[in-house]
Amino acid sequence: MTAYDTIDRKRRRNIVSMEQQFRELHQKMTSYNEAISLLYWDMRTGAPKKGQDLRSETIGTLSSELFAMSTSEEYGKLIAELKKQDGLSIAMQRSVEEADREYQLNAKIPPEEYREFVVLTSKAESVWEEAKEQEDFAMFQPYLEQLVETTRRFVGYWGMKNGSVYNTLLDQYEPGVTTEQLDEVFGQLRERIVPLVKQIQASENQPNTEFLYGHFPKQAQQDFSLEVLNQLGYDFEAGRLDETVHPFMIAVNRGDVRVTTKYDEQDFRTAVFGTIHEAGHALYEQNISSDLSGLPVDGGSSMGIHESQSLFFENFVGRNESFWRHNYEKFLSYAPDSFKEVALNEFLEAINESKPSLIRIEADELTYALHIMIRYELEKGLFDGDYEVKDLPALWNDKYEEYLGIRPEHDGEGVLQDVHWAGGSFGYFPSYALGLLYAAQFKNAMQKDIPNFDELLSKGEIGPVTEWLTEKVHQHGAVKKPLELLEEATGEGLNGNYLAEYLETKYAKIYQLD
Amino acid sequence: MTAYDTIDRKRRRNIVSMEQQFRELHQKMTSYNEAISLLYWDMRTGAPKKGQDLRSETIGTLSSELFAMSTSEEYGKLIAELKKQDGLSIAMQRSVEEADREYQLNAKIPPEEYREFVVLTSKAESVWEEAKEQEDFAMFQPYLEQLVETTRRFVGYWGMKNGSVYNTLLDQYEPGVTTEQLDEVFGQLRERIVPLVKQIQASENQPNTEFLYGHFPKQAQQDFSLEVLNQLGYDFEAGRLDETVHPFMIAVNRGDVRVTTKYDEQDFRTAVFGTIHEAGHALYEQNISSDLSGLPVDGGSSMGIHESQSLFFENFVGRNESFWRHNYEKFLSYAPDSFKEVALNEFLEAINESKPSLIRIEADELTYALHIMIRYELEKGLFDGDYEVKDLPALWNDKYEEYLGIRPEHDGEGVLQDVHWAGGSFGYFPSYALGLLYAAQFKNAMQKDIPNFDELLSKGEIGPVTEWLTEKVHQHGAVKKPLELLEEATGEGLNGNYLAEYLETKYAKIYQLD
Repeated sequence: MTAYDTIDRKRRRNIVSMEQQFRELHQKMTSYNEAISLLYWDMRTGAPKKGQDLRSETIGTLSSELFAMSTSEEYGKLIAELKKQDGLSIAMQRSVEEADREYQLNAKIPPEEYREFVVLTSKAESVWEEAKEQEDFAMFQPYLEQLVETTRRFVGYWGMKNGSVYNTLLDQYEPGVTTEQLDEVFGQLRERIVPLVKQIQASENQPNTEFLYGHFPKQAQQDFSLEVLNQLGYDFEAGRLDETVHPFMIAVNRGDVRVTTKYDEQDFRTAVFGTIHEAGHALYEQNISSDLSGLPVDGGSSMGIHESQSLFFENFVGRNESFWRHNYEKFLSYAPDSFKEVALNEFLEAINESKPSLIRIEADELTYALHIMIRYELEKGLFDGDYEVKDLPALWNDKYEEYLGIRPEHDGEGVLQDVHWAGGSFGYFPSYALGLLYAAQFKNAMQKDIPNFDELLSKGEIGPVTEWLTEKVHQHGAVKKPLELLEEATGEGLNGNYLAEYLETKYAKIYQLD
Repeated sequence: MTAYDTIDRKRRRNIVSMEQQFRELHQKMTSYNEAISLLYWDMRTGAPKKGQDLRSETIGTLSSELFAMSTSEEYGKLIAELKKQDGLSIAMQRSVEEADREYQLNAKIPPEEYREFVVLTSKAESVWEEAKEQEDFAMFQPYLEQLVETTRRFVGYWGMKNGSVYNTLLDQYEPGVTTEQLDEVFGQLRERIVPLVKQIQASENQPNTEFLYGHFPKQAQQDFSLEVLNQLGYDFEAGRLDETVHPFMIAVNRGDVRVTTKYDEQDFRTAVFGTIHEAGHALYEQNISSDLSGLPVDGGSSMGIHESQSLFFENFVGRNESFWRHNYEKFLSYAPDSFKEVALNEFLEAINESKPSLIRIEADELTYALHIMIRYELEKGLFDGDYEVKDLPALWNDKYEEYLGIRPEHDGEGVLQDVHWAGGSFGYFPSYALGLLYAAQFKNAMQKDIPNFDELLSKGEIGPVTEWLTEKVHQHGAVKKPLELLEEATGEGLNGNYLAEYLETKYAKIYQLD
């Protein structure tokens, strides 16, 4: 044995021990996250009213502890040391990178300013709620101004990324994506969607949708939703379905990925498509490789990729003709008698209706991207352009008129509709539209590997579809970045054409456009 | 202003700041407890199977953190300083005392030995499970020997209390209660129960119980249980009812006190009396004065007092003739048709049947105390007398034969039936019997203040009963110690005669004894 060997073995032993410490520290944070997730889930699904105030305090206490751990000197040193090492596995390398990104994000903000920011967002959220109720943007304006200013200051602490303030914010949700790319793909998409929306409105072939609003008992909706979850391959031994006001998916731990839904007895679509959407998120989490367990990369690659999975299932599976060919009879067995008169074709047209609307979360597949583009343009203008907070309501309304042909009557159904800005989340919205784009690109690539996609759906065989997504997306967790996943799965970068083509073909058929 | 005043003001300011720190530290521990309680509740009520291993780890992580806080130097110093102060409020004084008791209990054990003890109990519990299954005490014996030895060593660290090792253990669950008192009251009680059990067995008037085992659908049991909970005054805005394998009550936080029950479709009594029992625990927690919120005294006075409240509701309310006079019709509306033939009187006799049995948790109101006395005598003998672990099975069987007239055929239904010893809990069992004794004493005192107790029950008016218990017991939390509560509520100390009289009267009527 040479002296060199000895040094090398020592060095490797040292790395292994650092990795071990890193894993243990992160595992501890994961445990805190599990507790916080469950406390939150429980608060939303059935915790008694009188315990809610104390519950919020408890979540606050554990969150502070978690924040302290994630910004501790010990953790920072470990990350810095591991970053210098060669020979880490890819998963460990990316874990250290992710941990570092998170660490820098938190640790670079002076603690006092961070505390002030938390207080500000908490106040801003209550003021926003009140302002939305009162349809009065002026109430919320000073808070939004402070939030923009604080965010700008934070970007100063973090250091600018990709050349602009807004690119720095974008990068937090969608690493690698820039306004240059978004301007291009959103532009392409808008040029094709806006005229399509107009054609649809002008069409004489409007679907009959009246029957959608017939009374549909909650229990029957739940029973059907459970059947669909099973068919999609959602693992009930590693999850459960509950009821909430706002549906969500939450990964409590690796073997416990829960979905929630909302039952509207006057519109079954809320529950059925909501459940399928959340199932898409859940399948992603359930199928991440167990090799990544407990590491910082044990989660989705980005907000946009996560959304691509929920939208893939909601739109490409859940609103697909073949899917309903298989499920319509079952659906009718749960549906009220009034549905029995509705032919499958009529049903399909109704659930795929497209109509410009003012509220993002009620928008259909086609117009949804326009809602996002408006928010994107406003955010970009606020941080990199000439927009000021006070101008937002007018800008908002003008853009809705321009893109969707409708104009909000007040700020409650306009600029005040979303909570994101009140929570200090700027740069988040584009991920929703990216989800649509990614999903369409994945669908296009998948079709080459699975040419009988529709035939499988018409037999209720979703297995090969989920396997494809698992191989290309799910299993990798956050080891691969969004654009890397996209490139490897589809052979190209961000491209708006696939979504545009899909929408054009789909709606031409429904509305019999020429 | 004299110099003395200044010093005094400074001193008071100093106390206020110490109290504040103490409250904050304890509040933080309370938050950890809330998270741990919810993680546990969720695991028992519906967490998906595949998440259970990670869930256990998470509970372990948070428990270790909590233990570290509760034995921290900072906390210890604060307690020591506050103990020296005069002029604390009673609630604060008792809080410091409770915190100190807990602190001494934990901090006096060398950390390494504590860790070993945790590992030992965890191993002992799995071995016990296996041994019980195999009906083989020899498997479990070495673990039990180690547990006894470790406990004895711990008592050495803590310092002996009330003159004996076993008294030291007793004091942890039932502060102030000693073997001298237990020997006396248990002795009195046994002398009256043992002959009563024999008379009952010899009676020709055995109730017909066959109908109890008719199929009773779970949903109907649940609906009836919910009605009963409402009638008892359980606050559903501060709690909820769920299903578990082993029923329990858990105070997640002050405004969130949950109960669980078990549904046996072949015996509705499991759910109905189980729910009423847990409701008794829950009413105690729900009615603790909000002034004690977040303090160490915000909880029950002792295990025995807590059990007295659950048993009060289970036995003195739930098995009471007047209670059923009010509820039987409602019960029949949920019960299967087979019950329609059963007269109220027949029903009452059946649910109050008494029969010696081998298993403690299946025992009736009369024989239950005998099961406890046997365990008490064995524990006492192990720590203060001449018993050795290896002799327990034979001693157990002999005592069952002597007190109950039946003999286990194997250790699975004998000495191995309870988990307590495997968990290192020695001195806990007497609290169950003390619960019975306290409950009977409270009932006797209550009858003087509420002479129309039965009339109220027959009208479904439980309000005055709960108010009495709230005034005398619930509101005080752990500010008053068990014997102090008893003395103030009933005007006397521990006295076995009230329970004995109650049982004699009750069973003489059912079994028509002379």
